[in-house]
Amino acid sequence: MTSQQKLKNKTDQNLHICVGLDTDIGKIPEHLKSMQNPVLEFNKIIIDSTYKKSAAYKINFAFYEKEGIAGLENLERTLELIPNDILTIGDAKRGDIGNTAKMYAASIFDHFNFDAVTVNPYMGIDSVEPFIQYKDRIIYVLALTSNKSALDFEKLRLTDGSFVFQSVIKKVNEWNTYKNCGIVFGATNNEELKKNISSFKNLSVLLPGVGAQGGSLEDVVKSFNTIEHTDYIINVSRGLIYADNGKKFGKVAENVLDEYNRKIASMN
Amino acid sequence: MTSQQKLKNKTDQNLHICVGLDTDIGKIPEHLKSMQNPVLEFNKIIIDSTYKKSAAYKINFAFYEKEGIAGLENLERTLELIPNDILTIGDAKRGDIGNTAKMYAASIFDHFNFDAVTVNPYMGIDSVEPFIQYKDRIIYVLALTSNKSALDFEKLRLTDGSFVFQSVIKKVNEWNTYKNCGIVFGATNNEELKKNISSFKNLSVLLPGVGAQGGSLEDVVKSFNTIEHTDYIINVSRGLIYADNGKKFGKVAENVLDEYNRKIASMN
Repeated sequence: MTSQQKLKNKTDQNLHICVGLDTDIGKIPEHLKSMQNPVLEFNKIIIDSTYKKSAAYKINFAFYEKEGIAGLENLERTLELIPNDILTIGDAKRGDIGNTAKMYAASIFDHFNFDAVTVNPYMGIDSVEPFIQYKDRIIYVLALTSNKSALDFEKLRLTDGSFVFQSVIKKVNEWNTYKNCGIVFGATNNEELKKNISSFKNLSVLLPGVGAQGGSLEDVVKSFNTIEHTDYIINVSRGLIYADNGKKFGKVAENVLDEYNRKIASMN
Repeated sequence: MTSQQKLKNKTDQNLHICVGLDTDIGKIPEHLKSMQNPVLEFNKIIIDSTYKKSAAYKINFAFYEKEGIAGLENLERTLELIPNDILTIGDAKRGDIGNTAKMYAASIFDHFNFDAVTVNPYMGIDSVEPFIQYKDRIIYVLALTSNKSALDFEKLRLTDGSFVFQSVIKKVNEWNTYKNCGIVFGATNNEELKKNISSFKNLSVLLPGVGAQGGSLEDVVKSFNTIEHTDYIINVSRGLIYADNGKKFGKVAENVLDEYNRKIASMN
């Protein structure tokens, strides 16, 4: 099954929430900390509690790389816990010159076997092309991110009046020959979302920033409904996986997910 | 000893070549391939042959991540082989939102203990700030890269007539409160180097692209000599480590390095 099919199976069921497994040992419930592998125990319970009701899992490499090799072992073992019919996104934000990007693509897609990846566009097509060659995966290119300093460069204005991030979206549309390209667009940027939504219609869209970062789920769904585009997923990490820090954290995470799903369904 | 001091000790001796340990199992000499750990054997010989005459070592994560955990074990063991008085650069090109960038910084500086890092500016200061907090390290921010598609976004023109990469250089100068910031500027861009060199004078500069990518060592040295700025290093990877594929590859790499050093010295 291609990554595109995995994702479509979920969005066809009106499932649009991506669960971000940004697992930080400092934030997980106390009772897990005495276990042999607290991070893995935590991820297992979150996955078991959410996989029937979520659209994808996103794993941010930073949270695992921080612990070096032990962390990457946890990343590999976490991937093994995720059922094969749901999209896995390697949130790596990699970008390098061509021959090096090829190695990164091999790492994410061949070694770790993620279904999708996030990449950084700064260095241009050379750095994205080796990922695009994996036709049955999804490549989410950073466009407008959810953080405040997206202003620094992404929102610089070009001579033709457009912003840098709009130039990225335009290019990603050009690169989308295999229909395997997408963009990352921060849900915290609601005005820009409304203004740019028509440029998303042929792209898969990953929207972080709902929950802890302050983005609104309703605003996102409303914008996508206006263009009748269903190929989008909204990432929630902290607001879901750390919704409770007691023994029932899995059930609480499931409830949070249910609530998000209900909101989305009610808008259709 | 701070990273800044390590580097200054080398550039004071007119040593400006950074050896890129972009070790690819497919490209190393045949006779090493039967050994237990060919990549590590290769790196050991390259380091032994070059460390007295080079300014720094740069390790590109992609070449190690490609092999997953086994690759990162080689990366850690390679770092152990590098003497403590020479700068090590983790060429990671990371960039993510603040709380995540903090994890990446911890990975590069606390876990792997690199002296310096490369980071991607696309997401702005939030993504760079956590690295800058490590005052005794050096943070090289991508400005104008050595690849062809640097044109795609880095060379887009802004409303004030400047290019995106020039806006990055301007910001890096503003971020340089602790005198630990630098930029990556591709040696393949000689015209731009000449035009922008005056904006480099308070920054540490890492210049990839000499050798296999076609950048000229002489052009780089000439530009830095015009502003009497010595805080720069020129990275050579493929053109040096793969200069020979026989049993004397270490000696040949040393000779290539000697030749580069002679050229630099002759221009002073």
